[in-house]
Amino acid sequence: MDVDEPDSPLDRWEQRTELPLFYASLVFLAAYTVRVLAHDADVVWREIARATMLLMWLVFAGDFAARLRLSRQRFPRFLQARWLDAVVLLLPLLRPLRLVKLYTTLQRRRDQPVLSLYVRVIVYAGLSAVLLGWAGALAVYHQERTAPGATIRTFGDAVWWVCETLTTVGYGDVTPVTAWGRTVAAGLMVCGLALLGAVTGSFSSWLIQVFAREDERRPPGDARPPGA
Amino acid sequence: MDVDEPDSPLDRWEQRTELPLFYASLVFLAAYTVRVLAHDADVVWREIARATMLLMWLVFAGDFAARLRLSRQRFPRFLQARWLDAVVLLLPLLRPLRLVKLYTTLQRRRDQPVLSLYVRVIVYAGLSAVLLGWAGALAVYHQERTAPGATIRTFGDAVWWVCETLTTVGYGDVTPVTAWGRTVAAGLMVCGLALLGAVTGSFSSWLIQVFAREDERRPPGDARPPGA
Amino acid sequence: MDVDEPDSPLDRWEQRTELPLFYASLVFLAAYTVRVLAHDADVVWREIARATMLLMWLVFAGDFAARLRLSRQRFPRFLQARWLDAVVLLLPLLRPLRLVKLYTTLQRRRDQPVLSLYVRVIVYAGLSAVLLGWAGALAVYHQERTAPGATIRTFGDAVWWVCETLTTVGYGDVTPVTAWGRTVAAGLMVCGLALLGAVTGSFSSWLIQVFAREDERRPPGDARPPGA
Amino acid sequence: MDVDEPDSPLDRWEQRTELPLFYASLVFLAAYTVRVLAHDADVVWREIARATMLLMWLVFAGDFAARLRLSRQRFPRFLQARWLDAVVLLLPLLRPLRLVKLYTTLQRRRDQPVLSLYVRVIVYAGLSAVLLGWAGALAVYHQERTAPGATIRTFGDAVWWVCETLTTVGYGDVTPVTAWGRTVAAGLMVCGLALLGAVTGSFSSWLIQVFAREDERRPPGDARPPGA
Repeated sequence: MDVDEPDSPLDRWEQRTELPLFYASLVFLAAYTVRVLAHDADVVWREIARATMLLMWLVFAGDFAARLRLSRQRFPRFLQARWLDAVVLLLPLLRPLRLVKLYTTLQRRRDQPVLSLYVRVIVYAGLSAVLLGWAGALAVYHQERTAPGATIRTFGDAVWWVCETLTTVGYGDVTPVTAWGRTVAAGLMVCGLALLGAVTGSFSSWLIQVFAREDERRPPGDARPPGA
Repeated sequence: MDVDEPDSPLDRWEQRTELPLFYASLVFLAAYTVRVLAHDADVVWREIARATMLLMWLVFAGDFAARLRLSRQRFPRFLQARWLDAVVLLLPLLRPLRLVKLYTTLQRRRDQPVLSLYVRVIVYAGLSAVLLGWAGALAVYHQERTAPGATIRTFGDAVWWVCETLTTVGYGDVTPVTAWGRTVAAGLMVCGLALLGAVTGSFSSWLIQVFAREDERRPPGDARPPGA
Repeated sequence: MDVDEPDSPLDRWEQRTELPLFYASLVFLAAYTVRVLAHDADVVWREIARATMLLMWLVFAGDFAARLRLSRQRFPRFLQARWLDAVVLLLPLLRPLRLVKLYTTLQRRRDQPVLSLYVRVIVYAGLSAVLLGWAGALAVYHQERTAPGATIRTFGDAVWWVCETLTTVGYGDVTPVTAWGRTVAAGLMVCGLALLGAVTGSFSSWLIQVFAREDERRPPGDARPPGA
Repeated sequence: MDVDEPDSPLDRWEQRTELPLFYASLVFLAAYTVRVLAHDADVVWREIARATMLLMWLVFAGDFAARLRLSRQRFPRFLQARWLDAVVLLLPLLRPLRLVKLYTTLQRRRDQPVLSLYVRVIVYAGLSAVLLGWAGALAVYHQERTAPGATIRTFGDAVWWVCETLTTVGYGDVTPVTAWGRTVAAGLMVCGLALLGAVTGSFSSWLIQVFAREDERRPPGDARPPGA
């Protein structure tokens, strides 16, 4: 990771745009949700959702261009240093993965005490997994809904499928059958596995930390000095 | 986590009520077990179980109110600091998650040597997983038993389903089919994944520790000094 | 864990019997294998296998009694300190879990260089998982073979089922259907999950160690001093 | 692991042959891909692929013989120290596991800054898993394609099966049914579990590291000294 000078124009741009861009990505996700779930509703709603998605994507592209400009780096080098940003531009549904910067930005602004390290990793990875799972459920439902021989036929099925996939339980009662559905599923498995692995690992470390701390606290009536 | 003054009234209240509340939650779980499993028995048994559950829940609510009072904090701040207690009040079946405090309370009272750190985490997370699994098996069996097309038809099926879900094996020979059954299942997956991940991780750390300790112990006939 | 005086009679007993007992447990496992797999063969073979199993079990019981005697502890305290030994006496198929002592005993006797810590944990946990898996495949095959509606019908099916269970993949193409088969399966899942989690975790730590060591080794033509 | 003298002939041989051998293993994998996937094409293609595989294997065998010669060790000792090389010679599809040496060789040659430790482990284990998965998909597809009652009937099915197997999701919608297919699958499960466990574990450690580093960076306008 490139550590930029704290006061560079790029740094200031990123701090100012972080929160608006996050809201934009939530709007994008909401519009995608409407477009996928409103398949039986009036065509107007779907067109509004599609237009909103396009608009948000233009915002993302504009932000990418602005950051490329401000970094004063040439394109290939910029791409190498910020490949996650480029991926996120092409697949805006992956934007939740950038949450980590937003969180620290928010905490600084509000001057609140930051949560303990493991809890923050759990919250970040868990939240990313939830947003990714939601986007994955929508994308798979969109692909599978009308496929012949599909087992994912309602959005409820898709959400249930995401739950059993992300936790790697995988009953197999509902599974994607189309090529695109399976491609989305494979991506979801890999990302979700890593994110939930981070949740599990951090929870384990946090629990060990809590128990280790309990050892240090003496019971109220205990007269023995701490070093005894 | 709020570290209260060791001699505050809230602290004393919590130390005195910890054990009775744990027994109350066991009674609650037993009553729920009776209510779910006795579906073919006399209606009297089910009504007694239901009344016991209500009584225990009133005890939990009373304890929550007493602690809110003793903490002298305002409600929102109290809720923020003790959100797990509030969740546990709404869903008493999750009460096992508070076991950690009970364990240290018990150890202090009996003045017994505390187990090694990793073993304690394994015992705590394993026990929580067992109690959660039992509650989950009951809840899912209650939902699925009479559903059309259900594969979980006996309580044995439900227990087997919990085993393959918590270990993330997920054969899929028995799976919940109702919306509520799947909701309970999703909650169980996430909690169980984290708890069993803690068991696995701690077991791994404990095993490495055991092997590392073996290195330090010299064989009986070995004349080399320990520092050589 | 109780650390006994290095020269106590119990210690000497354990060091002398460790290897014979391991061979006895291998003989036990082999006899069980013959008894289960030879169901179509002459009844004589099965009776010989049964007698061998009984004989080995008497050896195990004798060793347990000898150790109880030599420890000069009372029964409940002995049981508390060595509960794994007692479990292993009741379920001799779990004996592989005691491999860890055997390994260090062997290494000391042969005066060989001991493998690195993580590799030893991988070897121990992996070997235990293989032996447990073999015993589990036999036990489940024994239960399921003749059950109505069984999907585990050949020993090959049982081995395949153990592979997909221990790795928590769980396709569900072959699953136990009897109550005893499922009980064995649940035990196998929990033990196997912990053992394979130890393998995975140690492999991960070992890989990180290997990469970290690569950093320290300088390339051949590199003139920079190691501390630069 | 044997650490050879940095300037030994064996060392120089290994540094010079590492890259050509990697290309040879890629050619081997490509030829195997052609041989398996071109089952409906002209027999000429398959024969060319078969000849290429044989040629590459002769190159691998020659390299193994050369290294045995240069090490001036006797065969059993050489085998003990380099058992992975011998396994890789017998099963050239496992060659990706030797990638780790290649990577560091490449980095040194190009004098590029090396990635952070966890990222390197993720990249190495992830890449190995991808190559192993590809080889496994080909091998299983080759075995299962014409088996009666097979569920893996297209190469797409085989790739999908590898995805759900390596991530241990295991829906069970497509599973191998032949004995050889299941043997390959079992090997893939164990290797893949360890490799993906390394990816997950390193990702978790990396994420915790990123969050810990964020703590140390002060916000731009923050006047407090770092030690306050």
